[in-house]
Amino acid sequence: MSGSIFGKNFTVTTWGESHGKALGVVIDGCPSGIPLTEEDIQTDLDRRKPGSNTYGTKRKEGDKISILSGVFEGKTTGTPISLIAFNEDQRSRDYSQISECYRPGHADYTFDKKYGFRDYRGGGRSSGRETLSRVAGGVVAKKILKELGIEIMSYTVSIGNIEIDRNKFDIEEVSKNPLYMPDRDAYEKASLFLDECIKNENSAGGIIETVVRGMPVGIGEPVFDKLDANLGKAMFSIGAVKGVEIGQGFLSTKKTGFENNDFFHYNNGKISKLSNNAGGILGGMSDGSEIVIRTAIKPTPSIHKTQQTVNKNNENIDINIKGRHDPVIVPRAVVVTEAMTAITIVDLIFSNMFSNIENIKYLYKR
Amino acid sequence: MSGSIFGKNFTVTTWGESHGKALGVVIDGCPSGIPLTEEDIQTDLDRRKPGSNTYGTKRKEGDKISILSGVFEGKTTGTPISLIAFNEDQRSRDYSQISECYRPGHADYTFDKKYGFRDYRGGGRSSGRETLSRVAGGVVAKKILKELGIEIMSYTVSIGNIEIDRNKFDIEEVSKNPLYMPDRDAYEKASLFLDECIKNENSAGGIIETVVRGMPVGIGEPVFDKLDANLGKAMFSIGAVKGVEIGQGFLSTKKTGFENNDFFHYNNGKISKLSNNAGGILGGMSDGSEIVIRTAIKPTPSIHKTQQTVNKNNENIDINIKGRHDPVIVPRAVVVTEAMTAITIVDLIFSNMFSNIENIKYLYKR
Amino acid sequence: MSGSIFGKNFTVTTWGESHGKALGVVIDGCPSGIPLTEEDIQTDLDRRKPGSNTYGTKRKEGDKISILSGVFEGKTTGTPISLIAFNEDQRSRDYSQISECYRPGHADYTFDKKYGFRDYRGGGRSSGRETLSRVAGGVVAKKILKELGIEIMSYTVSIGNIEIDRNKFDIEEVSKNPLYMPDRDAYEKASLFLDECIKNENSAGGIIETVVRGMPVGIGEPVFDKLDANLGKAMFSIGAVKGVEIGQGFLSTKKTGFENNDFFHYNNGKISKLSNNAGGILGGMSDGSEIVIRTAIKPTPSIHKTQQTVNKNNENIDINIKGRHDPVIVPRAVVVTEAMTAITIVDLIFSNMFSNIENIKYLYKR
Amino acid sequence: MSGSIFGKNFTVTTWGESHGKALGVVIDGCPSGIPLTEEDIQTDLDRRKPGSNTYGTKRKEGDKISILSGVFEGKTTGTPISLIAFNEDQRSRDYSQISECYRPGHADYTFDKKYGFRDYRGGGRSSGRETLSRVAGGVVAKKILKELGIEIMSYTVSIGNIEIDRNKFDIEEVSKNPLYMPDRDAYEKASLFLDECIKNENSAGGIIETVVRGMPVGIGEPVFDKLDANLGKAMFSIGAVKGVEIGQGFLSTKKTGFENNDFFHYNNGKISKLSNNAGGILGGMSDGSEIVIRTAIKPTPSIHKTQQTVNKNNENIDINIKGRHDPVIVPRAVVVTEAMTAITIVDLIFSNMFSNIENIKYLYKR
Repeated sequence: MSGSIFGKNFTVTTWGESHGKALGVVIDGCPSGIPLTEEDIQTDLDRRKPGSNTYGTKRKEGDKISILSGVFEGKTTGTPISLIAFNEDQRSRDYSQISECYRPGHADYTFDKKYGFRDYRGGGRSSGRETLSRVAGGVVAKKILKELGIEIMSYTVSIGNIEIDRNKFDIEEVSKNPLYMPDRDAYEKASLFLDECIKNENSAGGIIETVVRGMPVGIGEPVFDKLDANLGKAMFSIGAVKGVEIGQGFLSTKKTGFENNDFFHYNNGKISKLSNNAGGILGGMSDGSEIVIRTAIKPTPSIHKTQQTVNKNNENIDINIKGRHDPVIVPRAVVVTEAMTAITIVDLIFSNMFSNIENIKYLYKR
Repeated sequence: MSGSIFGKNFTVTTWGESHGKALGVVIDGCPSGIPLTEEDIQTDLDRRKPGSNTYGTKRKEGDKISILSGVFEGKTTGTPISLIAFNEDQRSRDYSQISECYRPGHADYTFDKKYGFRDYRGGGRSSGRETLSRVAGGVVAKKILKELGIEIMSYTVSIGNIEIDRNKFDIEEVSKNPLYMPDRDAYEKASLFLDECIKNENSAGGIIETVVRGMPVGIGEPVFDKLDANLGKAMFSIGAVKGVEIGQGFLSTKKTGFENNDFFHYNNGKISKLSNNAGGILGGMSDGSEIVIRTAIKPTPSIHKTQQTVNKNNENIDINIKGRHDPVIVPRAVVVTEAMTAITIVDLIFSNMFSNIENIKYLYKR
Repeated sequence: MSGSIFGKNFTVTTWGESHGKALGVVIDGCPSGIPLTEEDIQTDLDRRKPGSNTYGTKRKEGDKISILSGVFEGKTTGTPISLIAFNEDQRSRDYSQISECYRPGHADYTFDKKYGFRDYRGGGRSSGRETLSRVAGGVVAKKILKELGIEIMSYTVSIGNIEIDRNKFDIEEVSKNPLYMPDRDAYEKASLFLDECIKNENSAGGIIETVVRGMPVGIGEPVFDKLDANLGKAMFSIGAVKGVEIGQGFLSTKKTGFENNDFFHYNNGKISKLSNNAGGILGGMSDGSEIVIRTAIKPTPSIHKTQQTVNKNNENIDINIKGRHDPVIVPRAVVVTEAMTAITIVDLIFSNMFSNIENIKYLYKR
Repeated sequence: MSGSIFGKNFTVTTWGESHGKALGVVIDGCPSGIPLTEEDIQTDLDRRKPGSNTYGTKRKEGDKISILSGVFEGKTTGTPISLIAFNEDQRSRDYSQISECYRPGHADYTFDKKYGFRDYRGGGRSSGRETLSRVAGGVVAKKILKELGIEIMSYTVSIGNIEIDRNKFDIEEVSKNPLYMPDRDAYEKASLFLDECIKNENSAGGIIETVVRGMPVGIGEPVFDKLDANLGKAMFSIGAVKGVEIGQGFLSTKKTGFENNDFFHYNNGKISKLSNNAGGILGGMSDGSEIVIRTAIKPTPSIHKTQQTVNKNNENIDINIKGRHDPVIVPRAVVVTEAMTAITIVDLIFSNMFSNIENIKYLYKR
């Protein structure tokens, strides 16, 4: 495996298995001089933690993070930042079911075929638990963005067929309900729907929207490292993501050019767009509007309901996956999409610094 | 700009502006021993060429490709392959309109802000003409895949609101109509719709589907260089793409886990899936089923209809974009999505070679 | 800082400061199926440890390594391997001298200018202690090479002006003396010389030779990722290295082409060279002969003798560096050169796997 | 082959074979706004050209460079710069000798083993002619450095056993003699020695020194992308290089720490070093002194004198290499070392821009 590093200049290297000794992340390329504490990181980890909402798994995940390097006297030093969370809950348990067959919708089969065997305990490396490392790395990225006045927020816009009503959109509501939905009514309906899912030993998916405010114009590197291209990769690298849209996304294909184009307008000493169908990205570069990304999260594959599958002896069997499972992972993924967005943007902000000789001269003649 | 290189081990470096002297691509990491001729490449370039279908721009693009290096006695040598197409049509023309204002839906504004100025001739580097280089590189990737029995095919599944009827799906039809649609009736309706667009000085978008057959199991590198993550980046790096889906994509969010999971089944000495909602990717690795990707192409931003914008003097103006423009770029993008898919898959096939010590020993003890 | 990752496909990401909480390394790209234990790693760490020879610092370094991920049931799984060693010796001490001035020959000044401040405790990130992570990563690389029959050995060929006598070369002697010299007499002279250095509050440097046996032909990627280019980078990335040679190195400049060329010879079904002035590398690729690298290690900059320098208030001052210091770091560097050589070669062995379409077909049709 | 790209953010991708249609380079990551003409590039190409000095091959190399992209109205646009030189001299000739056997000291054998066959015409990709692309890329790098007040100069310090006398060092002399030696007397002796080499059908090597002036402090990324590490790679990537030294290099191993350490001194509002044994690099970062690199160039392997080798039928044969050959390639390599140094430094100057949050804030609040 050689895919555990994300980013070019601001890099995040994650490691760790669901039920191994620990999980962690090494952040290389973080500038010096940024205040960083373990509490900063813990806050987002707690938002991600299954225990933090009603519909997460009941397993106790400690997720207590430690900073092992790269911070001195409360500030980043410019050297790699190593963050670690030990797995508290490692008692031996019965993995015979999961180790011997291929769970539908999971990576058991592909892992076995690629590597010859797998660490089957709790899903090993393909567990959602791996995203703990991403969220920790994302906090560092967000701290950098904060210094530049850039903010990122993700929230849930649908669970199954229940969608938020844009007319009732209330950003304050996001932190008040465990599904991170910006519409109280939608949350309540989704809540009932998820209760139904649990009763039916089934699960649900949903859609997350991520908004970035305060972007400078010109972030993104044509033609392959476009802002949308790198965000697309970032989002699809999250386990259950099956679709990504920027701005109007698939809907734009139903519009005419005249309807879809955003007109430029000059007012009050500033150029802006009269609409934002583009989702804040033109030609792969930020255009100064809000970045808007939507991400499709498939329904949790782990369900109690009886399914058909194959075991290691190539026998067709029925399987009822045991244990406690999230009926929906969308709220956990909300925090992960924020993290991946932040990491992606910081990386491209660095690349933009040397796009123009005037920038370089300006800095070196400082 | 530092984003003109795509891939890690099989790399494609594109260069060239729409109305500069030439465009080209350098392919590094191509294995030795693959038969390659200029004709091989020309075939796909001709499929991409606007002149090849009724709804493309009428401008004559020569797109005559030359192989300048990396091929000897008809075969690749393992050294970088340089491909070039000179721009035949470089006579001076009137660019005053495009140079002085920011066309809605285009990269004029973001280019200017990022770099301080831009090569405005025909869109410069952000022109769709840049994809010529990608298509040329894609041909080389496809030749490698062909040696391994892997095939890629893209086609149009919708233009505006006109969608193909899956019951009438006919793959033979794709090469018979200029919109590359696998349904004759849908093509005819789309054709009438596009005539309407032209009459209205407007444009349309659409959705492309890409299918990959013959994939081995296990291609893709968890956790960041997942097959879907790298495909996501590849697709979003194409100019007009605003959305990407794998398998059931956004639709999967409306399903339950039980409905969406694909059951494994053993039959005739082989494990396969009873359905393919996953689009051939599990845990970021190919699962042996067909890879299915859908890509949303926004309506062409260049339209004759009057639009509002801002010029370089920060004046709010009306603009009627002159010249001949595609009412739809979907058919051109069809060929580009094939190319980007091929390049992405070859790169990950290389990475998979050293995933297992048995592979390495097998090869070095050959 | 964005330079803590080494390698392209087999990557080693190191982190940690001399007197921080811990040091470690994440190895990404290690194939699955390789037996790996903490003892395997501890052995090389102990060879590197200052306490292991008479001329190292007397500080007790625990260097107890733990494997935190990537190994399951005694074998690598193909997922990232995280190795960690906690710093046992973190009690507060007096760093006022080192924190306030720039030690000659050290990175204090450049760190401060680059990052604005530095973790001054024990040299922070620029301490030789960082090489612990490299050695740990190197063990994993050596395990891979062992599976392919490739062996690496480094030893000391000179300390100050005392050089080994090639006629007395005895490889068995290397592990028997703390300076890792393959000549008992030279070791004894060097030993006396180092006693003298200590008495004079001074230090010494030396030259290390690294030999690689069992290399297949063709490892190395022309034109920039040549085997010698990547080895050159690997060696110069080690703290005190000021020169690197391959084969005859600088001496080859004094020879004629006829003297320096190695003639090819066919014998017993095998092509070999009648001499090895090239040091096993032709055109940047291994030629099947032994790889021979020599590395110049500067004298330890930390000495007790009075030196002149500048403090943070820009005052010219005298400095007597306190504490216990190695009079020579050459023996510690011996183990580090082996590690960096192993990491470099594994990475290029991976790249070589897809150099030829026959290799790829051979593997995928397995 | 996947090694034709050098650099991380400022990348140089070279392509082309000695006797193919053309050679070229794509420079990605060049900032916008830098004046660049074909004449700028031609000047250095002419310095590199064999015809430019008495001891180069007599073959006429046109080396006429064209800029194909990335420059508009005389300035770089920030998009990739494609440079090309067509091979004028491609008439068919007799390659039977070189195609059928392995020339000692050349890459014929390793290329064949790695790739299965090779473009044998004039050495193909392993020809010194490949450095044309590097020199072209180096010119662009030098233009960037010039904007920052950084200058690079290389010259010959020895040819065979003839060394320059440092007391007679005259930098003006470098451009006045075809061996680029800064000492007229040494040049004259070397000249006689080379005449002797030609008469003996033999060849010679030499040592090049490269000096960089005007470096800011802090360029280089610990711990792996140190300035010296990347320079080491850059230099060893040049065909005939067998050794690289920074500052005192191998000589430093013979000194004590007290002799080798450079003392810091504050004077006139500025910290500097009282000596420069370190060659301008401390802890892998520039320290503000001159960077000093020495590079060992082996004697040209192509000689007329009879040598032993093996042919493709595994027969031991005698070989007399025909054609005109440089008795020494040192002067050509002088220009190449400048180019590789410039490319390396620009790349690390970019990385340094985001080492500190103050830099980033300073730039984005501009």
